Amino acid sequence: MTITHDTEAAQAIPTHAESLGEALLEALDGPYHAVRSAGRAAFPTEGMLRDPAMGMAEAREWTLHRLGTLVEAGFGQSIVPSATATPEQLIQSLIDFEVVSYGDLSVAIKSGVQHGLFGGAIASLGSPAQHDRFLADALSLRLLGCFAMTEVGHGSDVQSLETTITYDRLTAEFVIDSPTPAATKTYLGNAAAHGRMAAVFGQLIVAGQRHGIHCILVPIRDDEGRALPGVTLGDNGHKGGLLGVDNGTITFDQVRVARDLLLDRFGRVNPEGSYESPIDNANRRFFTMLGALVRGRICIGAGAAIASRRALAIAVTYAEKRRQFRHPGRKTEIPLLDYQAHQRKLLPAIAKAYALGFAQNDLISAFVDVVGNPEHEPRAQRELESLAAGLKVLNTRFANDTVQVCREACGGAGYMSENQLTQLRADTDVFATFEGDNTVLSQLVTKGILTNYREVWGGLDGFGLVQASARLVTSAVIERTGAGVLVERLVARTKRRAGEATFFDRGWHAWMFEERERHVVDGLARRFRAADKDSFEAMNRLQGHVVFAARVHMDRVVLDSFIEGIEACPASEVKDVLERLCTLYALISLEQDSGWFQEHQRLSASRARALRGQVDVLCLELRGHAGDLVQGLGIKREWLGAAMLDD
Amino acid sequence: MTITHDTEAAQAIPTHAESLGEALLEALDGPYHAVRSAGRAAFPTEGMLRDPAMGMAEAREWTLHRLGTLVEAGFGQSIVPSATATPEQLIQSLIDFEVVSYGDLSVAIKSGVQHGLFGGAIASLGSPAQHDRFLADALSLRLLGCFAMTEVGHGSDVQSLETTITYDRLTAEFVIDSPTPAATKTYLGNAAAHGRMAAVFGQLIVAGQRHGIHCILVPIRDDEGRALPGVTLGDNGHKGGLLGVDNGTITFDQVRVARDLLLDRFGRVNPEGSYESPIDNANRRFFTMLGALVRGRICIGAGAAIASRRALAIAVTYAEKRRQFRHPGRKTEIPLLDYQAHQRKLLPAIAKAYALGFAQNDLISAFVDVVGNPEHEPRAQRELESLAAGLKVLNTRFANDTVQVCREACGGAGYMSENQLTQLRADTDVFATFEGDNTVLSQLVTKGILTNYREVWGGLDGFGLVQASARLVTSAVIERTGAGVLVERLVARTKRRAGEATFFDRGWHAWMFEERERHVVDGLARRFRAADKDSFEAMNRLQGHVVFAARVHMDRVVLDSFIEGIEACPASEVKDVLERLCTLYALISLEQDSGWFQEHQRLSASRARALRGQVDVLCLELRGHAGDLVQGLGIKREWLGAAMLDD
Repeated sequence: MTITHDTEAAQAIPTHAESLGEALLEALDGPYHAVRSAGRAAFPTEGMLRDPAMGMAEAREWTLHRLGTLVEAGFGQSIVPSATATPEQLIQSLIDFEVVSYGDLSVAIKSGVQHGLFGGAIASLGSPAQHDRFLADALSLRLLGCFAMTEVGHGSDVQSLETTITYDRLTAEFVIDSPTPAATKTYLGNAAAHGRMAAVFGQLIVAGQRHGIHCILVPIRDDEGRALPGVTLGDNGHKGGLLGVDNGTITFDQVRVARDLLLDRFGRVNPEGSYESPIDNANRRFFTMLGALVRGRICIGAGAAIASRRALAIAVTYAEKRRQFRHPGRKTEIPLLDYQAHQRKLLPAIAKAYALGFAQNDLISAFVDVVGNPEHEPRAQRELESLAAGLKVLNTRFANDTVQVCREACGGAGYMSENQLTQLRADTDVFATFEGDNTVLSQLVTKGILTNYREVWGGLDGFGLVQASARLVTSAVIERTGAGVLVERLVARTKRRAGEATFFDRGWHAWMFEERERHVVDGLARRFRAADKDSFEAMNRLQGHVVFAARVHMDRVVLDSFIEGIEACPASEVKDVLERLCTLYALISLEQDSGWFQEHQRLSASRARALRGQVDVLCLELRGHAGDLVQGLGIKREWLGAAMLDD
Repeated sequence: MTITHDTEAAQAIPTHAESLGEALLEALDGPYHAVRSAGRAAFPTEGMLRDPAMGMAEAREWTLHRLGTLVEAGFGQSIVPSATATPEQLIQSLIDFEVVSYGDLSVAIKSGVQHGLFGGAIASLGSPAQHDRFLADALSLRLLGCFAMTEVGHGSDVQSLETTITYDRLTAEFVIDSPTPAATKTYLGNAAAHGRMAAVFGQLIVAGQRHGIHCILVPIRDDEGRALPGVTLGDNGHKGGLLGVDNGTITFDQVRVARDLLLDRFGRVNPEGSYESPIDNANRRFFTMLGALVRGRICIGAGAAIASRRALAIAVTYAEKRRQFRHPGRKTEIPLLDYQAHQRKLLPAIAKAYALGFAQNDLISAFVDVVGNPEHEPRAQRELESLAAGLKVLNTRFANDTVQVCREACGGAGYMSENQLTQLRADTDVFATFEGDNTVLSQLVTKGILTNYREVWGGLDGFGLVQASARLVTSAVIERTGAGVLVERLVARTKRRAGEATFFDRGWHAWMFEERERHVVDGLARRFRAADKDSFEAMNRLQGHVVFAARVHMDRVVLDSFIEGIEACPASEVKDVLERLCTLYALISLEQDSGWFQEHQRLSASRARALRGQVDVLCLELRGHAGDLVQGLGIKREWLGAAMLDD
């Protein structure tokens, strides 16, 4: 969206809310409340949801058309060259994707492919001349494009892609080729039907020398939609969801394109036919290029978060309305949300939705700080990528689990497509494995924890972290900056009076999360040092520990964000409710790892026993605010689109 | 299926297996190996899977046609009147549904609706005259029917259904009526398109007196498919899955049917116009009628189990074939299944699939013992219903979780419909809430644990158990019969040498499971006795405990079945592999509740810490048998239907 807005105003403390629900929304939106409010106001409600009975071909055309409506309304226009982007543009580019996710997710993902990935590749990896030539057309949909990274043979392992981009000095052209069937590009949005061009990732070869993965723009269809010579296009066909996105395959047979189509911000072939790059080290160059694409991962996490909120809004609204069974102590049948088991399904999920929302705000800020500042430290870049990967994992796992819980909480009605939940479920499913498989990304997060990145890694192979951690890591340090001082103060205060800590002591929560992370990471580093790094078997035995370290690290990061987000609120009812949500979020995580905490003497048996009851009590207390809590998630009533809520 | 077979042979110990995989399958099939083998051999492979791109109308016609093919092959013919059924027929009726579940699940569910529910209602609730009149046509598909229980207003709470079945003495007819919009019957398979008749559940009223829920056959469409007078038919439309099942709604406006259409095994109106029933107590009659329908619940659990096995077979086969990332210690790229994280996703699920399979065998035996023996004790009936409900919950939860894990384990390929996983996922989703919502059924299981059923319950309201348990329960007793003596012996032996128990000591597993159940149920009974039974709030606070009790009870029951199932195997490699699977199943459950075991001093901190490593080691050991383990699940390679496994 292109809306002029005042950054100062956008970051002011909320004061104009007319209800608890509105106040919660202001608090959760945080510094981006004004931008998000404007986005929600500008989002065209009419036609925002697709008829789930549409077949694939129809769904694809509907999705393209709806995307056009959104572009006309201004969405997707803030993808601008990273080097010159203003903070407002960077923020807007992320919020746009959030807002688009309030509607049909095929449209959101198609926007993600077109604006975020295809447009983003041009904006982040291209030169100013390439921006001038292609970016406006990409954003306006005049030039529909694919992001051709994944191959049949290699998805997560990007460095092993087989596609070649070979420079032909005689003609000053690049030759794009798929040397094996496994090199076929696949699962590409816009490839099956609408794309005219593709941003293709492959191994750059100049004068016989390999320079690693680069990205090049390759026209794939002519104006009539026919495949260009040497290009073979395929259709991935029917999918488990996102039926409106035309995923397909591309195979290249010695396809020639001009020299100036290589996106050349980080590497190019000069007119003399020699390779040049501002980054000498090939590995560092690879990770710099991938790092420039961090926006996609941030957006997928955000989209999953919105999907979770939509499902929760539907299920909670239904659970307040739907009644089942009588009890002698009640005159009328009992609303589903009055049942403890139902509260346990929905209220912890609401708490976690808020927690993840506050963390996402901090991720947006980190994105602006890094991408908006060309002088940023490499360490800040690494931390941004870690945070983006970690929140992508948490948000997409949360979406899969939560939408399913919400579906079941609505019984048979929840299974009817007209009530939206199965559509949300089917669409968000793949979020767990695209834009980085969650298991692989968890390892990336742990790599980020274990190293200060002074050294360039040997690879993204899930074990590359080993060599470095063994050399560099001496002990796990929980590092906090800026507002993190508040959390440190809380922890310090609790430690001084450790015997008195209650279940509601925020310092105790932060302390427990910190202890868990520190212990898990310390243990992991010790195991790495002791292990034979050349043995796959030895390294493989640590994988579960690596994935666990990522999770407990991210849980702590999210709690920090929640605590700091609440601190920005004025003392009021909204703050009180947020405090209880935060406690619920913290206790649920402690309950989930109750075994671990007891194993490591961080929680006594009696305290662990009492924990469950405290969670139940909190759920019951918050149940009274359910309507407000849902309003605070920002999903307008008229956006729910669930037939069972009518009347 | 109608296949003549020798019961003795079917129950013999397997001896003819030619490979470990075949031997595992024989063991897992257990006493039903011959019947299952015959069923698998007779199952028509060609056309067993539906093109996922089919629209709803096409999918419905395809499904009906495929069901016809299965009926021609003999499936669905063993639904016979309960009172005269032979053990072979009872077994066959259950195995038929299992085998049908190897193919498209819409077909399986349509068969479940037509044969199991509609045919089953006639067979179980009808008189011999009604059997003669309707059953053959129902089984042959000449008379397609609905099972009209659920209403818009009431699903789980069957006793509160609003539909009325009022006897008109003047005309000797019943008048079927939907007095409110909430009384509309909904989510009924066969209602939207194909059904000609419905087995309608409603409140029977004779001469102004209410006799509770009864079932009556009501014609709904004429031979041209038009709704009959007074009958309004609706279409539930597009669903999250099972697109080939034509779910719809029926509303009755004073529809009249003859007196002899009331299914009258348990209650009828005699020619003089008076109500008669062999069961005086209305509550007992209600539960007897519902109990007669236990087959449906058994079949849904079995269908979910088969779906889980299909997903596991696909994901494991893919994980052996698909390679990703290199490591210095390996020459080639690494198969996904070599990664610890991948093993952790799939191997515990395989172990649980085996565990649930052995338990399902025991459920089939219990079904035959109860339904095949008119003289059975009421207690045996209750235990059957409890076991059926409990295994339905476990199997459907397991299917939802496992199919999703399998989908994610196959990355982007897993999301393509041609690889079957998203179809399985969408289809099994609703299994968690139909044929009894899992949360409600869990409460039913606990009710079964808490009472010896001397007293008839006040209702299925989730709290009816309260009154009785408070009066009757004095302490939780883990009761085992028959082969359970083996488990008791194992436990006793371990107790004598408690200090020496290793993680591989079967007696220790059984002891831990028993202790968990005993403690949880004892605690629950204590809380009931102390609680104010008339206060919804007081009772509601116990709901989480009630649901947990059901789970730990069922986990113990399943372990018992696994142990006894292994005992039936001759000492051999297959027994060794099954022992390790059983250990993995047990340790995973202990790991899941590690917090609980430590809270209650059943597991020391150091032992809890060591547990995780043992699970990892077991997964690694079993990984070497992955192919055989999958073969043992009984899914033929040519049934997988996943394009990514071709070549």
